[in-house]
Amino acid sequence: MPSNAKLHAYLHGQIQPLESAFLHVRDLSIQRGYGIFDYFKVQQGQPVFLADYLQRFYESARLMELAVPLATDALKDVIQQLIQVNHLPHSGIKMILTGGYSANGYDPGEPNLIILQQPLTLPTPEMIAQGIKIITYEYVREIPKAKTINYSTGIRLIKQIKEAGASDVLYQKNGVVTEFPRCNFFIVTQDDVVVTPDADVLLGVTRKNVLKAASQKYKIEERAVTLQDIAQAKEAFLTSTTKRILPVVQVDEIVVGNGKPGAVTLELLDDLVALEGRQ
Amino acid sequence: MPSNAKLHAYLHGQIQPLESAFLHVRDLSIQRGYGIFDYFKVQQGQPVFLADYLQRFYESARLMELAVPLATDALKDVIQQLIQVNHLPHSGIKMILTGGYSANGYDPGEPNLIILQQPLTLPTPEMIAQGIKIITYEYVREIPKAKTINYSTGIRLIKQIKEAGASDVLYQKNGVVTEFPRCNFFIVTQDDVVVTPDADVLLGVTRKNVLKAASQKYKIEERAVTLQDIAQAKEAFLTSTTKRILPVVQVDEIVVGNGKPGAVTLELLDDLVALEGRQ
Repeated sequence: MPSNAKLHAYLHGQIQPLESAFLHVRDLSIQRGYGIFDYFKVQQGQPVFLADYLQRFYESARLMELAVPLATDALKDVIQQLIQVNHLPHSGIKMILTGGYSANGYDPGEPNLIILQQPLTLPTPEMIAQGIKIITYEYVREIPKAKTINYSTGIRLIKQIKEAGASDVLYQKNGVVTEFPRCNFFIVTQDDVVVTPDADVLLGVTRKNVLKAASQKYKIEERAVTLQDIAQAKEAFLTSTTKRILPVVQVDEIVVGNGKPGAVTLELLDDLVALEGRQ
Repeated sequence: MPSNAKLHAYLHGQIQPLESAFLHVRDLSIQRGYGIFDYFKVQQGQPVFLADYLQRFYESARLMELAVPLATDALKDVIQQLIQVNHLPHSGIKMILTGGYSANGYDPGEPNLIILQQPLTLPTPEMIAQGIKIITYEYVREIPKAKTINYSTGIRLIKQIKEAGASDVLYQKNGVVTEFPRCNFFIVTQDDVVVTPDADVLLGVTRKNVLKAASQKYKIEERAVTLQDIAQAKEAFLTSTTKRILPVVQVDEIVVGNGKPGAVTLELLDDLVALEGRQ
């Protein structure tokens, strides 16, 4: 997040300068890491696939026993006001809902809703042209369908990822891969089936749109994906709101396909960009 | 935490009124639930077993790749200053170390160290006299040896615990029990062996002291404890810094022993209180 004094944020029921957006230390995010969030893109001043992100935000809140203080329409209004105030036509908006100010440092209080708008950090052209190397790590997120703020494992692994010369970490359990800390995972099989894990993953909005785009041209499958499947795959890629589609060319010591970004991957990236533009 | 305007806290390198202890929303605890903490008691103005708690605090920080901004002696000095300022002779002190102000909402910055002093909430005499009922839930903490601020699962289960008429939740995996969100677990076997789980648990300071006290009179074992072991046990109890020892008389549908707090449990509670007084 930049220290841009002109940016505004929503907190404690009002839009205010980002620089003055503070939470008291008794908030349950600080005390107990308790909260959920969601994040969507703004392009040409318009939220992209907003309905999907809002639906997931409320669902995460429900799964974590938190009440969102604003109904959908009121939340949309705040988002529109923030977009108008900040003048960031291409940006990301993050909504965080914490466990609120706790009386005893454990039991949730009234949830605090924070909405932040920030510039987008996109993958470099080199990352798309060359693809990325990733490592794997044995872990399953606690409540996979909820987008909680718990990134204890992902952030703790940042050093290990760097030391391996990799760009990200793919979680796996007993050889079955699931997701990245912030992205979903796909493979393309030798016979052009586009496959993504079906269990223990966050239901990414970009994942959904890529499946939709892929289904126009290819067979798609949501099913278990193993390290063995990756070794035999033609292509692999990750998806996320900011990264869209990023080719994965190496997983641990496994070189995927011919070790270069694949044709299906790059075609789906084009299709996804077109889909974003149409909505 | 009370809204006592006279209480002071340590934040951003200085002791200040608790009411003004705020973190900017870009802190990684708020953005990603990333941080560690520890908590010890103050009795008659003196920290109890401080060396053990500080050692664990630094160890949690190391495991989570966070640098504590103060060395041990400087941290002890701050704690002493806080105790003098707050005049709370019987209290708890919580040290929280967050991932700090993150430039991009993911990579840690310079960790923020927060130190809070607060009144103690002790178990009621009824809870000790009657013992408590607990439920179990299948979960293993991500990095059991680190006292992270991640309580996503424990706090999400508060409602479920209440609905079951229980007081806490014991984590288990495939029938092997480990720990509570904030307490360790012990059983006393029919032949008076005091047993506590050895794997996938936080190494509680009270756990250590109870093992020490128990070893004076009984055989002690640190090993796997199953639900079957609980069904056959004579007594069960939990340990924590604030709760000391609390008898557990029912686990899900399993009544422990004769369903009443046991003699060994209550004897160990006396021994623990004595041990606290001697240190």
